[in-house]
Formats: sequence, C-alpha cells, structure tokens
Amino acid sequence: MSQNSFKISYPALHAGTNKSLIKFISGTPDLAALFFEGEEAQETRRRFFVTDATVASLECMQSFISKFDDGVCGKDCLLILGSGEPYKTIESVLNIVRAAFDANFTRKDIFIGIGGGVICDLTAFAASIYKRGTSVQFVPTTLLAMVDASIGGKTGCDFENYKNIIGTFFPATKLFYFPEFVQYLPENQYNSGLAEAFKTALLFDKELYDMFKNDADKINSRDSKTLEKIIHKCVKAKGSIVEQDFTEQGIRAYLNLGHTFGHALETVAGLGSITHGAAVAWGIGRAVELAYKKEYCMQAFRDEVFGILKAYKWYTESVPSFVKGGGFSERLITIMRTDKKNLSEKIRLIICKAVTEIQIEEVDEKLIASVLK
Amino acid sequence: MSQNSFKISYPALHAGTNKSLIKFISGTPDLAALFFEGEEAQETRRRFFVTDATVASLECMQSFISKFDDGVCGKDCLLILGSGEPYKTIESVLNIVRAAFDANFTRKDIFIGIGGGVICDLTAFAASIYKRGTSVQFVPTTLLAMVDASIGGKTGCDFENYKNIIGTFFPATKLFYFPEFVQYLPENQYNSGLAEAFKTALLFDKELYDMFKNDADKINSRDSKTLEKIIHKCVKAKGSIVEQDFTEQGIRAYLNLGHTFGHALETVAGLGSITHGAAVAWGIGRAVELAYKKEYCMQAFRDEVFGILKAYKWYTESVPSFVKGGGFSERLITIMRTDKKNLSEKIRLIICKAVTEIQIEEVDEKLIASVLK
Ligand SMILES: NC(=O)c1ccc[n+]([C@@H]2O[C@H](COP(=O)([O-])OP(=O)(O)OC[C@H]3O[C@@H](n4cnc5c(N)ncnc54)[C@H](O)[C@@H]3O)[C@@H](O)[C@H]2O)c1
Ligand SMILES: NC(=O)c1ccc[n+]([C@@H]2O[C@H](COP(=O)([O-])OP(=O)(O)OC[C@H]3O[C@@H](n4cnc5c(N)ncnc54)[C@H](O)[C@@H]3O)[C@@H](O)[C@H]2O)c1
Repeated sequence: MSQNSFKISYPALHAGTNKSLIKFISGTPDLAALFFEGEEAQETRRRFFVTDATVASLECMQSFISKFDDGVCGKDCLLILGSGEPYKTIESVLNIVRAAFDANFTRKDIFIGIGGGVICDLTAFAASIYKRGTSVQFVPTTLLAMVDASIGGKTGCDFENYKNIIGTFFPATKLFYFPEFVQYLPENQYNSGLAEAFKTALLFDKELYDMFKNDADKINSRDSKTLEKIIHKCVKAKGSIVEQDFTEQGIRAYLNLGHTFGHALETVAGLGSITHGAAVAWGIGRAVELAYKKEYCMQAFRDEVFGILKAYKWYTESVPSFVKGGGFSERLITIMRTDKKNLSEKIRLIICKAVTEIQIEEVDEKLIASVLK
Repeated sequence: MSQNSFKISYPALHAGTNKSLIKFISGTPDLAALFFEGEEAQETRRRFFVTDATVASLECMQSFISKFDDGVCGKDCLLILGSGEPYKTIESVLNIVRAAFDANFTRKDIFIGIGGGVICDLTAFAASIYKRGTSVQFVPTTLLAMVDASIGGKTGCDFENYKNIIGTFFPATKLFYFPEFVQYLPENQYNSGLAEAFKTALLFDKELYDMFKNDADKINSRDSKTLEKIIHKCVKAKGSIVEQDFTEQGIRAYLNLGHTFGHALETVAGLGSITHGAAVAWGIGRAVELAYKKEYCMQAFRDEVFGILKAYKWYTESVPSFVKGGGFSERLITIMRTDKKNLSEKIRLIICKAVTEIQIEEVDEKLIASVLK
C-alpha cells in the first residue's frame, strides 16, 4: 500500500466560551430584578432557565418564579428539575434538550442554570451539546457551586451510578454571584461548600487561610461580609488556576487536595451519607498528617490545620466515628487504587507542606495505610 | 443591590484536537496491517474501535475483525453497532460510553470510528463526552464520510427523530483514507457521496468541477485513480474551509449549497426514502435554476450544470418524478421556513453564480416557489 499525508489545523472552539464575565451582587437575591429589569433585561437572545425544585421554592425566588406561566415568560422559558445528585443523570440532560428543542431554541440563544453544582453541571452539559453548543450562564446558589463548581468549565452528569463519567469542558460566559443565597442552605450543605473554600485557602491564599484560622465565629455564623470575601477570593483563585491549565494537564490537579482520600471515604460511607465537603475536609486532614509523617511539614503546621478542621466540626480522626466494621485502611486503599487514572500507576496524592506549598507525589501504600488507623 | 465584576479567560480546548493528521492509503483496505503492523502498532494508548455490522462484514475487513476475540484484542477493544441512520441515536452513543467504561478506558486512550458518516459522527460524539474528552480517529468507509462527514469536527446524533440535534465540535486527530473502500458501496450510497463531492467542486475547485464535467465515465465506473483524486481534493477543500471558519460563523455555511432545498425534499419524500446526496444534488439544480432566474448566472452555466447532474443520473426536474400529490412548492416552502435558524428570519439560500462564485442571500418566497413548479 502507498501512503501520503497532510494536516488540517483548527482554531479555538466556540467563540464566546473563551471568557467568563463574573458579577457579584450583594443583598437578598432578586432574580426578577436581575433578569427582567436593568441591563440583563436588554438581552435580545432567548433565555432557557433551568433550576431545581428546592431552589424554585426558596422565598427569595418567588418573584422570579411567578413571572413564568406554564414555564413561559415572554420569549424566555423555565424548566424545573428534581433536586440533588440523584437527578444528575443523562435523562435530566436530555429533558433540558427536549424542552429547549420543543420551544424552538436555537444555538444562538442562552441556557441559564440557577442552582447548586448539580444544576450548573447539567445545564452546562446540555448547553454544550445542544445544536453543538449554545451559550450558558450560571446563578450558583450553593456555597459549593459558588466557590468551586461554577468556575472552570467542567460539565457533566453521572452515568450508571458512576460520577461525572460523561461531560465536556464548556465554561459559562456569565456568572452572577449572590452570596446571600448561602443563608438559605441547610447546615451540612453550608459546611460542605466551606470545606472546598478551605481547600482553596490552603492551596493558594494565605490571607484566606488566616480568615479560616482567626474568624471561625464569623464564618460559622455566616456573616455576610465575611462570606462575600471568601467567595470572591475562591472565584479569583480557581479562576486563575483554570486560566493556566484548563484541561487539567498540570496544576489544576492540585484542586484535588483531600479528594483521593475523600472519595474513598464517601464510597465506604455509602454515597450520599456524608457530604462531599465533609469527606474532602477529612481527606485534607489525612493529607496533612501524611506530609507530617514524611517530615515534609512541621508539627506546628499540622496542629494548626487540625485546630481549624475542628473549629468547623469536620472529621479529624484517622478513622471517622461513623465508620462501621474493621479493615478500614485496606478498604480505603483498595478504592484509592481503582480511583487512579491508569491501572499501572501508583497512588498519587496532593501533598500540602505548608500554606500554598503544594506538590503531587506517588505515595507508598504502607505510608497511606499508616494515616488510616 | 451592589455589584462588582471581573473576567476569567480560557485557552483553546483539548490539546490534540487542534490538528488533524490525514493519511491516504491506496490499495485494498487492510486494517489489520494498518493497526497491528508498522507505525500504528507502536501506539501505546489503548484503542477502542467502533464500527457497524455492514462494514464489519465486508470481505476486506475480515483479517481485522478476526483479530478480536469477544471484542478484545490485547489492550484494544472493538464494538459493532447496527448499521445506518436508525442507529444514530443517543442510545448508541451511550452504548459506546458504557462499553469503554466497562473496559476501563481512560481519557488518555483513543476511540477509533471505522465506517460511514453515522459511525464517525457517533464515535466522535462519544469520544468528546467520555470523561470530558478522549481523542478520536477515523477510518471513513463511505464516499460521503471521506469527502464530507469525516472532516471538520462536527459530531452528533439524532434525537427524537430530529437529525443531529445534539452533538459537539470535536475533530478527529488522525484520519486514514482508503479510497478503495468505495468499491464496496451500493450504487445509491456511492452516488450520494458523489453529490457532496460535486457540491465541493462547484464551491471551491474548478479543476474538480471539470473532472465531473469531462470524466463521467471514469467517475461512474469508480476508476481508482480518479476516485483518489476526487477524495483528496475534497478533503483539502473542506479542510481549508473549516480551518477558516470552524464553528460556522461565516463561510462554512457555503457547504450548505443545495441543502435547504435538499432537506425539504428529503422530508417530503419521507426520511430515508431517497439518499441525502440525491436530495442535495437535486437542491443544487434548484439553486442554480434560481440563480439563473435572478439573472445571476448565464444560461450556458445553468445548462452545463444540468448536463452534469444528468450524467450522474441525479434528479433535475423542478418536481422530481417520485413526488406524489399536489401543492409541492407550498409543502417545500413550509418546511424550508421551519428549517431556518430564527423564526423571524427570511429563507436564506446559498447561491452559485458560477463555479467557485458563491454568496448567501435572503430569497423571496415567490421566487423560490417559481423554481419548484
Ligand atoms: N463542575 C465542577 O467543576 C464541579 C466542582 C465541584 C463539584 N461539582 C459537582 O457539584 C455537585 C455538588 O454541588 P452542590 O453541593 O451544590 O449540589 P446540589 O446542586 O445538589 O445542591 C445541594 C442541595 O442544595 C439545594 N440548594 C441549592 N441551593 C440552595 C439554597 N440557596 N438554599 C437551600 N438549598 C439549596 C439543592 O436543591 C440540593 O438539594 C456534584 O454533582 C459535583 O460533582 C462540580
Ligand atoms: N459530521 C459531518 O460534518 C457530517 C457531514 C455530512 C454528513 N454527516 C452525517 O453522515 C451520515 C451519512 O453518512 P453515510 O452516508 O456514510 O451513512 P452511514 O454511515 O449510515 O453509511 C451508509 C450505509 O453504508 C454502509 N457502509 C459503510 N461503508 C461501506 C462500504 N465500504 N461498503 C458497503 N457499505 C458500507 C453502512 O453500514 C450504512 O448502512 C448522516 O448521519 C449525516 O448526518 C455528517
């Protein structure tokens, strides 16, 4: 056989998804005012809003929700999905697609997700595949979505009980942050988002870390000014990381601090029985303990981190009190092994040596086991 | 409420999908040799091959297919889907995802589609959403896939009987063209691909147009050297267009020459009852007739194009003979109206004034009707 060859080059995908415009808005969230008065009301594109039943029933949302009659308000539409991770399915994604298609939305219109990480991930995934890509915007309503899920363009859904197996990279073009949405969150959801914020502090922001260290009272009582500052700093920090490493070829992986331990704990506990953030916070403790054992960090730093974890009532024991049955370290390590990207690779962990001093390392399983008993 | 705002910027998506490497291979297609001997056999990534039952049963494919035992050959896997447009569904996409996931494929592996436009579109769509993006390569086996579907990164599937409603832009990183696959195609499939090649000639390549004009015998008898040249020229021409306008903001739309008429005819005929290419060829005739009526082109050009259409037995009558019932022009225009991107817009058509002289124009419905009766 004879061969000959050449190349075709492609420019960046999707005009518009190369920038996210971020707005912070203080005070009680008023989405009716945001979208139907002032600047955003001038939007000429049709808007397909997606939210979940819990968010739709929040008191502050009623003026917005009541604008829609049978899901329609002028040229705009609203779809309300079920709440929480069980609805993070391909069926939900296709429900969004179907409803938008039935209402004649084109690829020049906009999808807008209003909700936690689940609604943001689903709406953006649907937008990214709808007619090969329609703009998406977010109004994140959980602390987790504000400090983490809304930034950086990862979209997706679960599939056959595996988390985030399918998805795309498709950043929101505009994000509207109302920190006051956080006041409506149940305690465990608030605390879960806080864990990701603390992770961000440890990784990238000494000043934020000091806030966690010194202002536990304000943070635990959800002081508005303090929350605004935390959210603002986390968005900036994560934004800067994903600008440098969008598709996670390098430093974006730092964001997984505490997550390899955390995921394994979530699995052992039974998915959904502890929050993601609680598991991550525990994982951060394990990662710091491991750094201490490797003599990468001082005892003073280790003790300080554990002091902070306790101030927010996160699990700090090597074996959390709710875990039943023996062989905890073996069970966790088995899960951590299958969690790896390549079967041949060793378990790689994000190691925190001091505030903002991070590295990724392959760690011996014996050493991992030693911080799990 | 008080506001403050800033921006995050993102780099191009997905390292690797910014270039397509294209290889032409003459002679009887031998995929066993291609993938398991020589350069490609050195591939260290795992390969997930996808094809359809018709392609898998081609004689030239047997040495490749027989390498797989229960879908597995060493580290590689093979999935065989049903053949043709009825299988271009989200279920097929999810079947690919499920099989790849069950076989532990990671996002660093490769999906390889071997087949016509349906298999290429499905495999690339699955790859683009699998763990947020896994490389895809193609071995296009129909003429249509070689001259059109394999190039330019449009992926997708049908949904609830609407064509290509969901999908992504996700170019193949490598393409292997074996022009000899074309020898196995049934007459109508061959002729369908030829129509898209003729469209490309009219749009971009006078030399190719002259081949269609002068070498009908060679083309109709599938002369190997002639086919190689046609395919090579079409890949180059479409490659150059998508390099300039990847997400179809401008000139990529020229590729729709004949398609607005053609889609409408396909719908009236009943989807699947005539080939896409036959409908497009008819649509090209209508577009040229319209240009002639608008006095955009000479009668000589019009007559020449119709001469060519006839040489390949494409429909040239204003109302094709197989169409039943009256009111043809009204039915077509109604469909063309809903085919538009925006309900408010007029019907826009690609107009061909001479070989490679193209423009897009809003056309009065009365004028459109006049070429449909
Ligand atoms: N895309 C990313 O980069 C990224 C990053 C981290 C997490 N995630 C994803 O985010 C999801 C978790 O996010 P989450 O915790 O926000 O989940 P969620 O969206 O399910 O929200 C948690 C619960 O809080 C409710 N809720 C939302 N806003 C509320 C409010 N203001 N007051 C009261 N209740 C409210 C929701 O209805 C839900 O029941 C996971 O699926 C995870 O995979 C994505
Ligand atoms: N992505 C794009 O840019 C793009 C462009 C044009 C068309 N398309 C899509 O391509 C599809 C049509 O492509 P197609 O006509 O190749 O369809 P197809 O893949 O269904 O192939 C047509 C038939 O030919 C069979 N076949 C394939 N190779 C063969 C061979 N060598 N010998 C004998 N039979 C063979 C197939 O099994 C199928 O039954 C449509 O779904 C269309 O939307 C995509």
